[in-house]
Amino acid sequence: MRTIYWDDKKGCVTLVDQTALPVKLLLLDIHEVRDLEDAILKLKVRGAPALGAAGGFGVALLAYTIKSRDIKEYIEKLMSGADELKGTRPTAVNLSWGVERTMRKALTGKDISEIQSLALEEAKAIADDDVARCKAIGEHGSKLLEDGDTVMTHCNAGRMACVDWGTALGVIRSAVAEGKKIKVISCETRPLNQGCRITTWELMEDGIPVTLITDSMSGHVMRKGMVDKVIVGADRIVEDAVFNKIGTYTHSVVAKAHGIPFYVAAPFSTFDFTKKEKDVVIEERSGDELRYWGGMQIAPKDVQVYNPAFDATPMENVTAIITELGILKPPMDFSEIKKKFNI
Amino acid sequence: MRTIYWDDKKGCVTLVDQTALPVKLLLLDIHEVRDLEDAILKLKVRGAPALGAAGGFGVALLAYTIKSRDIKEYIEKLMSGADELKGTRPTAVNLSWGVERTMRKALTGKDISEIQSLALEEAKAIADDDVARCKAIGEHGSKLLEDGDTVMTHCNAGRMACVDWGTALGVIRSAVAEGKKIKVISCETRPLNQGCRITTWELMEDGIPVTLITDSMSGHVMRKGMVDKVIVGADRIVEDAVFNKIGTYTHSVVAKAHGIPFYVAAPFSTFDFTKKEKDVVIEERSGDELRYWGGMQIAPKDVQVYNPAFDATPMENVTAIITELGILKPPMDFSEIKKKFNI
Repeated sequence: MRTIYWDDKKGCVTLVDQTALPVKLLLLDIHEVRDLEDAILKLKVRGAPALGAAGGFGVALLAYTIKSRDIKEYIEKLMSGADELKGTRPTAVNLSWGVERTMRKALTGKDISEIQSLALEEAKAIADDDVARCKAIGEHGSKLLEDGDTVMTHCNAGRMACVDWGTALGVIRSAVAEGKKIKVISCETRPLNQGCRITTWELMEDGIPVTLITDSMSGHVMRKGMVDKVIVGADRIVEDAVFNKIGTYTHSVVAKAHGIPFYVAAPFSTFDFTKKEKDVVIEERSGDELRYWGGMQIAPKDVQVYNPAFDATPMENVTAIITELGILKPPMDFSEIKKKFNI
Repeated sequence: MRTIYWDDKKGCVTLVDQTALPVKLLLLDIHEVRDLEDAILKLKVRGAPALGAAGGFGVALLAYTIKSRDIKEYIEKLMSGADELKGTRPTAVNLSWGVERTMRKALTGKDISEIQSLALEEAKAIADDDVARCKAIGEHGSKLLEDGDTVMTHCNAGRMACVDWGTALGVIRSAVAEGKKIKVISCETRPLNQGCRITTWELMEDGIPVTLITDSMSGHVMRKGMVDKVIVGADRIVEDAVFNKIGTYTHSVVAKAHGIPFYVAAPFSTFDFTKKEKDVVIEERSGDELRYWGGMQIAPKDVQVYNPAFDATPMENVTAIITELGILKPPMDFSEIKKKFNI
């Protein structure tokens, strides 16, 4: 099942409303780009790869809905619409990337109908590429999992963050597809609870056994011998560190203390070859994410809060990084890697 | 300010309704033992030492409210009432202990009015003893804190768990009372959030600077050099481990990895001289504590959950235990300690 796709019968974008999970699986049919922009703004669709596909399908939606039949005017409207779409989440690189890649292809069309078909073709290609990348990550990573393993994960690096399959959860899905029995321990992932809301739901949909714990239990379950491996995703990988959802670093320290392998699963699009840990500024989010839960006050209104969205896990704590091109073992030498895979 | 006390003017027990925190400070005047039992059942009063005092004051309440003037009948009613009170939380040792200690003293009374005054006297003595013990823990522990330290804590080992002052937070209060500037980082403490609901509120009431974080941030804040020491309370201390709120062990591992002292503050009443870690069964609580928050579903209804209430921190991870009689450095030799303090 894909998180976002083009419904050829209906001629619209269909996506899973992630804000409705885990209470219900709600599929939204989106016929107007403004509704897609609204879905992006409200995080109904989230996750870097999923946003890349959303960008592509957004351009296709524009191409098919612009009324003007004058080619010059049509292209102007297409370009301004594409810019508006990118503007909904300016910091989400993948969104702009998906929009631009699709626009470049579409604008090679000679007439409106060719522009439309090229836009849709490219958007579908972006989605297919992402699934292929996740499957490749899964195939490489599944070699690291043994039949009977219990894997602990944090946040949601699954289907819902991508178009399908997922990165960290993709590795688990591939191992299960190969017939290995894998159990998962999902950390709830405060403060936004992607672990309890999305990861557990995704795995239960696939019939993969999952147990939910609080984030602070990771050390306890490892000490009790309940965890064989840890696999997480990544938001950005630099030469000396992996940036991922807050809490990842703590899990890496306890895993190391218990001699448990700590794997990161991510496509090369996550690598930032230009920076080191010290060059990356970690986004701090609103303290209200800890002061309130669903509108309910759970801490003093005016308590001081520290709420970084991500943390950095130094490469010494990472056993291996699982990419679509193969498995990389730290220490990382980025110039080496770029040569080897000619990136 | 005390969490629970006898109001001589009103002739009733007054206690802080902990379930109303942090939204408001609600003081309950309790004139009937059945209302006290209700408060205990609904966790309006919680924490081992606080329950010991509640047991004492409950007996005093009985002594003053039993109508019968026939001494034999009066004593029968007092004894059955005391048993009923103990029954409200049979596993809370301190509650029974407080009831029994007060009953023993009260029953030395020659007549009803002497029984009444002795019961109240003893109940007040239990509360005063507890405050004195916490103050003693604070005085010993404050020697370990330096002016300018930032101390990380987990759960609530403060005034609200005791009668006043607290154990872990008592050490911080004593250091502040001595003029040291201490900052606190409070982990929210999933799943029951004592850290965000109670610890932050308590410290803000006292004007002690506190910053709230999620439990999983402990490693990140330590790596960033934001933590000088960790101090937590304890639910039970055996020769080879400290049992405390789930999450404590993970914090101890990251503290050790960063060379940060990890202190446990607890009275000798917390020591179990008869057991080792392997002899202690950890209570597992309902999975709904992770599936729901304030009635709101936050995970799949039927997701499997592992929810131990406590974890065990081996003595190797403990820098020192701060007691009312002094500071103990692991490894622990319980026969030695019992000799030294003739326990």
